[in-house]
Amino acid sequence: MTRILIINGPNLNLLGVREPGIYGNSSMETYLETLRSRYPDYSIEYFQSNHEGEIIDKLHSVGFDDGLEGVVLNAGAYTHTSLAIADAIAAIKVPVIEVHISNVHAREEVRHHSMISSVCRGVIAGFGMDSYRLAIESLMVR
Amino acid sequence: MTRILIINGPNLNLLGVREPGIYGNSSMETYLETLRSRYPDYSIEYFQSNHEGEIIDKLHSVGFDDGLEGVVLNAGAYTHTSLAIADAIAAIKVPVIEVHISNVHAREEVRHHSMISSVCRGVIAGFGMDSYRLAIESLMVR
Amino acid sequence: MTRILIINGPNLNLLGVREPGIYGNSSMETYLETLRSRYPDYSIEYFQSNHEGEIIDKLHSVGFDDGLEGVVLNAGAYTHTSLAIADAIAAIKVPVIEVHISNVHAREEVRHHSMISSVCRGVIAGFGMDSYRLAIESLMVR
Amino acid sequence: MTRILIINGPNLNLLGVREPGIYGNSSMETYLETLRSRYPDYSIEYFQSNHEGEIIDKLHSVGFDDGLEGVVLNAGAYTHTSLAIADAIAAIKVPVIEVHISNVHAREEVRHHSMISSVCRGVIAGFGMDSYRLAIESLMVR
Amino acid sequence: MTRILIINGPNLNLLGVREPGIYGNSSMETYLETLRSRYPDYSIEYFQSNHEGEIIDKLHSVGFDDGLEGVVLNAGAYTHTSLAIADAIAAIKVPVIEVHISNVHAREEVRHHSMISSVCRGVIAGFGMDSYRLAIESLMVR
Amino acid sequence: MTRILIINGPNLNLLGVREPGIYGNSSMETYLETLRSRYPDYSIEYFQSNHEGEIIDKLHSVGFDDGLEGVVLNAGAYTHTSLAIADAIAAIKVPVIEVHISNVHAREEVRHHSMISSVCRGVIAGFGMDSYRLAIESLMVR
Amino acid sequence: MTRILIINGPNLNLLGVREPGIYGNSSMETYLETLRSRYPDYSIEYFQSNHEGEIIDKLHSVGFDDGLEGVVLNAGAYTHTSLAIADAIAAIKVPVIEVHISNVHAREEVRHHSMISSVCRGVIAGFGMDSYRLAIESLMVR
Amino acid sequence: MTRILIINGPNLNLLGVREPGIYGNSSMETYLETLRSRYPDYSIEYFQSNHEGEIIDKLHSVGFDDGLEGVVLNAGAYTHTSLAIADAIAAIKVPVIEVHISNVHAREEVRHHSMISSVCRGVIAGFGMDSYRLAIESLMVR
Amino acid sequence: MTRILIINGPNLNLLGVREPGIYGNSSMETYLETLRSRYPDYSIEYFQSNHEGEIIDKLHSVGFDDGLEGVVLNAGAYTHTSLAIADAIAAIKVPVIEVHISNVHAREEVRHHSMISSVCRGVIAGFGMDSYRLAIESLMVR
Amino acid sequence: MTRILIINGPNLNLLGVREPGIYGNSSMETYLETLRSRYPDYSIEYFQSNHEGEIIDKLHSVGFDDGLEGVVLNAGAYTHTSLAIADAIAAIKVPVIEVHISNVHAREEVRHHSMISSVCRGVIAGFGMDSYRLAIESLMVR
Amino acid sequence: MTRILIINGPNLNLLGVREPGIYGNSSMETYLETLRSRYPDYSIEYFQSNHEGEIIDKLHSVGFDDGLEGVVLNAGAYTHTSLAIADAIAAIKVPVIEVHISNVHAREEVRHHSMISSVCRGVIAGFGMDSYRLAIESLMVR
Amino acid sequence: MTRILIINGPNLNLLGVREPGIYGNSSMETYLETLRSRYPDYSIEYFQSNHEGEIIDKLHSVGFDDGLEGVVLNAGAYTHTSLAIADAIAAIKVPVIEVHISNVHAREEVRHHSMISSVCRGVIAGFGMDSYRLAIESLMVR
Repeated sequence: MTRILIINGPNLNLLGVREPGIYGNSSMETYLETLRSRYPDYSIEYFQSNHEGEIIDKLHSVGFDDGLEGVVLNAGAYTHTSLAIADAIAAIKVPVIEVHISNVHAREEVRHHSMISSVCRGVIAGFGMDSYRLAIESLMVR
Repeated sequence: MTRILIINGPNLNLLGVREPGIYGNSSMETYLETLRSRYPDYSIEYFQSNHEGEIIDKLHSVGFDDGLEGVVLNAGAYTHTSLAIADAIAAIKVPVIEVHISNVHAREEVRHHSMISSVCRGVIAGFGMDSYRLAIESLMVR
Repeated sequence: MTRILIINGPNLNLLGVREPGIYGNSSMETYLETLRSRYPDYSIEYFQSNHEGEIIDKLHSVGFDDGLEGVVLNAGAYTHTSLAIADAIAAIKVPVIEVHISNVHAREEVRHHSMISSVCRGVIAGFGMDSYRLAIESLMVR
Repeated sequence: MTRILIINGPNLNLLGVREPGIYGNSSMETYLETLRSRYPDYSIEYFQSNHEGEIIDKLHSVGFDDGLEGVVLNAGAYTHTSLAIADAIAAIKVPVIEVHISNVHAREEVRHHSMISSVCRGVIAGFGMDSYRLAIESLMVR
Repeated sequence: MTRILIINGPNLNLLGVREPGIYGNSSMETYLETLRSRYPDYSIEYFQSNHEGEIIDKLHSVGFDDGLEGVVLNAGAYTHTSLAIADAIAAIKVPVIEVHISNVHAREEVRHHSMISSVCRGVIAGFGMDSYRLAIESLMVR
Repeated sequence: MTRILIINGPNLNLLGVREPGIYGNSSMETYLETLRSRYPDYSIEYFQSNHEGEIIDKLHSVGFDDGLEGVVLNAGAYTHTSLAIADAIAAIKVPVIEVHISNVHAREEVRHHSMISSVCRGVIAGFGMDSYRLAIESLMVR
Repeated sequence: MTRILIINGPNLNLLGVREPGIYGNSSMETYLETLRSRYPDYSIEYFQSNHEGEIIDKLHSVGFDDGLEGVVLNAGAYTHTSLAIADAIAAIKVPVIEVHISNVHAREEVRHHSMISSVCRGVIAGFGMDSYRLAIESLMVR
Repeated sequence: MTRILIINGPNLNLLGVREPGIYGNSSMETYLETLRSRYPDYSIEYFQSNHEGEIIDKLHSVGFDDGLEGVVLNAGAYTHTSLAIADAIAAIKVPVIEVHISNVHAREEVRHHSMISSVCRGVIAGFGMDSYRLAIESLMVR
Repeated sequence: MTRILIINGPNLNLLGVREPGIYGNSSMETYLETLRSRYPDYSIEYFQSNHEGEIIDKLHSVGFDDGLEGVVLNAGAYTHTSLAIADAIAAIKVPVIEVHISNVHAREEVRHHSMISSVCRGVIAGFGMDSYRLAIESLMVR
Repeated sequence: MTRILIINGPNLNLLGVREPGIYGNSSMETYLETLRSRYPDYSIEYFQSNHEGEIIDKLHSVGFDDGLEGVVLNAGAYTHTSLAIADAIAAIKVPVIEVHISNVHAREEVRHHSMISSVCRGVIAGFGMDSYRLAIESLMVR
Repeated sequence: MTRILIINGPNLNLLGVREPGIYGNSSMETYLETLRSRYPDYSIEYFQSNHEGEIIDKLHSVGFDDGLEGVVLNAGAYTHTSLAIADAIAAIKVPVIEVHISNVHAREEVRHHSMISSVCRGVIAGFGMDSYRLAIESLMVR
Repeated sequence: MTRILIINGPNLNLLGVREPGIYGNSSMETYLETLRSRYPDYSIEYFQSNHEGEIIDKLHSVGFDDGLEGVVLNAGAYTHTSLAIADAIAAIKVPVIEVHISNVHAREEVRHHSMISSVCRGVIAGFGMDSYRLAIESLMVR
């Protein structure tokens, strides 16, 4: 079975609780169930951390795993501040897709620049929880 | 039949000819056939222009059409310079998805800022021609 | 009869339809009737285009016409991006008045700087449709 | 009788004396007479001060006067440096029209940005002394 | 009796009237009564002016008064534009506490930088009228 | 008993040891005792970490606790670099007060901008260890 | 016969009429005759448009023509604002020489930066109408 | 007798008291006596104000006085923030010399830029109280 | 035996694996053996972490150890983003040498500025793995 | 015989040796022979120096020589840093043509701005050694 | 006899010849005679060079000479670009006075910032040749 | 014998005399003796100049000398202003090591950016005179 890993960064453990006007009402757990039932042939793994270092550790531990199709990464606020995560993405072999639930370009200016876009395969932003699904679709095609 | 319109901006008529290292070898016409055969239940319309004004005219002419599911817009270089296209997107009712073939964030700095992202529903960049397909997928879900 | 030309730029053909919270509910056509009945001794001509090049062409075609009292120009988004229109204004003899329906200075930062103000005779902004009337008044006095 | 107040800021007491190439030859007093005879049904009051604080005091003292149609404010150099006057305008109820005799956008860069535009109803610049008249016209219409 | 002086800058005479969404409904006079009854052992003096120069004059006149415990200064908009007030604070001996009713950092960018913070003993912002009380508390402790 | 949580960020475990010219000589532990004896009716909890992620975890774990009056947060250097902590503050319900021991505005420029001020209830800086007490006072009043 | 194409951008149809202090008195038509008689062995074609899109269309239509020695492009104001024309130049095979009649570096700052220089073979500016001749010379040598 | 006017701006009434490390120990009054006894043939007048508006008023009142050789202006902090004083200097006929006691260029960055230098005849900075004498010398020569 | 501690920051655990074109082929472990055999009289300790907080913790735990000659710190990407690590270095007594394997100044602009250089004793960059040896040499001399 | 002087700035003595990918393989001496045989009626003088001061001295020594048709100046790196050479060009009477072998606009950003363009008659860049010939051509025409 | 050294930087050997509208008609030699006859008790030495390095050499050679009262330095364009001259001034003991003939602040922006002001004793600008005399006066007083 | 060349730039001839707080008390000559006796198998040559051009000349004259192991360059202030020296380093074959005695990153901002780092093999800064020795060590290893 093809494996895909979703990594969620800081504060995304609060999905469904945090600012529902921006992030919606459903929790990540509920959404993962929907995804997994939609793509029964894929093993969709999940990892969340509020720690920049743990996200880097995780990227390292899976980054050379030939059985992993790709990483879908919503780095949350670290998207805009973490050169270290960008370096980790550049250092590994598994492709990484950058996703955002909200349209970051329609929010505050600090969210307009991403440190990691240039080292990711592609970027998907603004489609709500569906951004994750589109990222998975992108990994299926190539 | 649900209708979707793809609009391509300046220089994208040269797809397959122009800088294949960045934009790939297949022409838009060939790709459209692939798309249409993949989504037989959708009517995928296509419009290309090198003129900023014609893109605005087109957005106006379709922008209040209830039968149109959405516009997939690759505004090319106008992405980075045209406030007028951004205003057109904000003025109409049909949702617009911003797409890019290349990962614009990994190219020159002038391509890092988009004038239109904040008024589009979402952004998809860096997946080659597959960016168009993902945009269509995004319109199917909502 | 003294002639005055009003030129409206991109997206202003949607007046009355587009973002009524900012631009109001009445269409330009309705407003022109009001203007013309208020100033029966003036011939108030009208031109609208979403094309930067057509606005330049129009400015050239009327710019040396001694019978034209002046041009009232609402360049819309091109106000903020078009050096070419500014050059056209500087190149012609007929005076041009810059107008804006909304108070551009109270909107997004990209609308705070005008490329054309320095080559126009004067600027009028923020009075709704009445901005056009005040511009016409300004041409009557001189 | 409807009342309108014109407030002139720093150095505008020297009109007719100061840099006639920019500001013209006629004094404000002479111009006020012309204005008053043109609009006999309006009471056009006048206040000038070189003191930022006095302009704020004046705005406060008239700012809640229901009998006042509006304030026509040429804040001179304070236009570009006074956040305090901007706050005063935002704090009061009477509408304020920003006017400039010269086309500030065609002068030094320091005069291109206005601190007060975003809290005024509208802006009129570049029509010589006639800028005041147009501002009065704008108050009559609404 | 220990004496403390509260200085309020431009537009703060309108407290209770001006933008109640930001500044609340109670006037400074009412609030001063509450403060004085809460701290009966302190003499709480009050000075307000819309004039930058008068605030400087006041700071000079009290700045070497050994009987004054400190100055609580809400410089309003002058916080962001007045180097002259900053110089006055640096020149005197009595300590000055900078206070703001609103959370200036959550407002427009022009209010994010303070000219006077670096010469004040400390800064208190965002607690509504209670900011003044906290400043007084800070003077009691030292 | 009302509960208040003080969170100290990176390097603040060295209080009393680190740069005494800036941060003073007393340790946080000693100071906490003083605070607790001064406010016997309050339960003042304490948490310190040098890890951005642990501060976010802590904010999440207490952020929806109705029994907690507020968080007093000295985020140290993370004040100026952590958008992730700012997002955590915005995501929770318990109010957060930003405090600084030193007057950050009188230090290097990198310390003049706070990432978190705009999402905190208020800011208190420059009063030495007393900044913590003033923050607690602010929570008592509301 | 070797062919060379001269493309003139916006407002250059007014040569001889527009700002003669900057652009001289002779029209482009007169100058073309001089050029053609000087280089009888060359076919010097000419195209002018005020439309950004038409310039792109023209570049595309000639850009893969092996019989064309090169394009001499005076993009006028689009030099400074059009990334789309720059992309068109990069996309085609025929070399493009950037020319300017005036010394753009001695004019307003907005004219100091060119969007297209980096994708042109070379730049010639400041020699009046003779800039076109020098560009033709440059194409003859290589 | 030739007359010269010295104008001192904000906080300069504290000379001899304020920051003696920067401004020295002698008061302006003492220094004026020295100056007057050194130049017995000159009438050296003196004016000080902390009010921007009063400085402008003073410049107006003396600015067209043919009997005045020149104004020696130490505008203090207003040097760096007052466009209104700069406008006043530009509006009058009497020449103005800008002086500073300290070497403003060796102090904080906010003091490196002067709003008024470009409209003054010349600038003298860094010579302590002797800066005033040198300014007077400069007026004697011309 | 004199002790020296080498601290490696994020992604440096991948040395020999990650981007060999920039960082070379040998792993840190191999290199440490070379170093230790070259300097048999020194105890060269080693610590690596991808966590900003753990690097700070480590600096604290060794920072007051009189037996430690110095710390050789390659902070990786945190060099450019971590004010907290800079604060930790400033807070401890043991000297810290900043090293980089690659010539950071010849790479992307984001790597040109170091947050920590100003609080380190010195900086060594661009000598490949030999940068570590040079840092050790620098500690031997003083 | 008409005389023209070519001045080459720093590092251009290494032409043919230095970075041939950018500057080509032929030395200046070889190229000068080609030029001189092509233009036998012109005396083409040559001067090279790595010293900013010597270039200024040379410009002075020839700058008022009526027999000199013009100077062709490739100032190398001084193009981007030397205001002193710009002043020398502005001070002399003989016209100066700025040339560059490479297309400076397609290289690093520091080479995009020229200190001397605004005081030269014109600019020619990007034509390899042929840039010198075009500059000579430009001097022949006028 | 007290000795003073005047150093003139690049292009100042052309005084009387170069741009007389800015620098006047008299040569430095003529002016030196006037100065020397006015101050017969002073030995006024003179040095001019267009070479940055020679100015540094000269400053070094006189910089520790106890018999030299001071250096009057008009560094010309090097004022704005030479950190090396600034370092030389900071390294020597003899005081240096910065002078400018023209009012540099009323000229192009590149002349508004001085690299050397902060290490000079004082600055005198805008008094024509008389700037040198005022500098000498300033050295006499101290 | 292996040869190494040390080049010192402007003001470094004053080592031991100039600002001893920053640069120490020992002269370069004394230090060179120490170095030479420490490395008897190396011929350590030395060159110092205050002239940018002479440093370039020297780099050219040794830059293709196969017998030279490398250049140790302390370019002093030219580090921060000389693109011409950077070009010279890039043009030659012998490797260049950039050294600084002081920690330039802990000094004024103008010293934080180096023009030459990107073309040097590596950078060593902040170790006092020992920076030179470390640079020599670096050349021995490779």
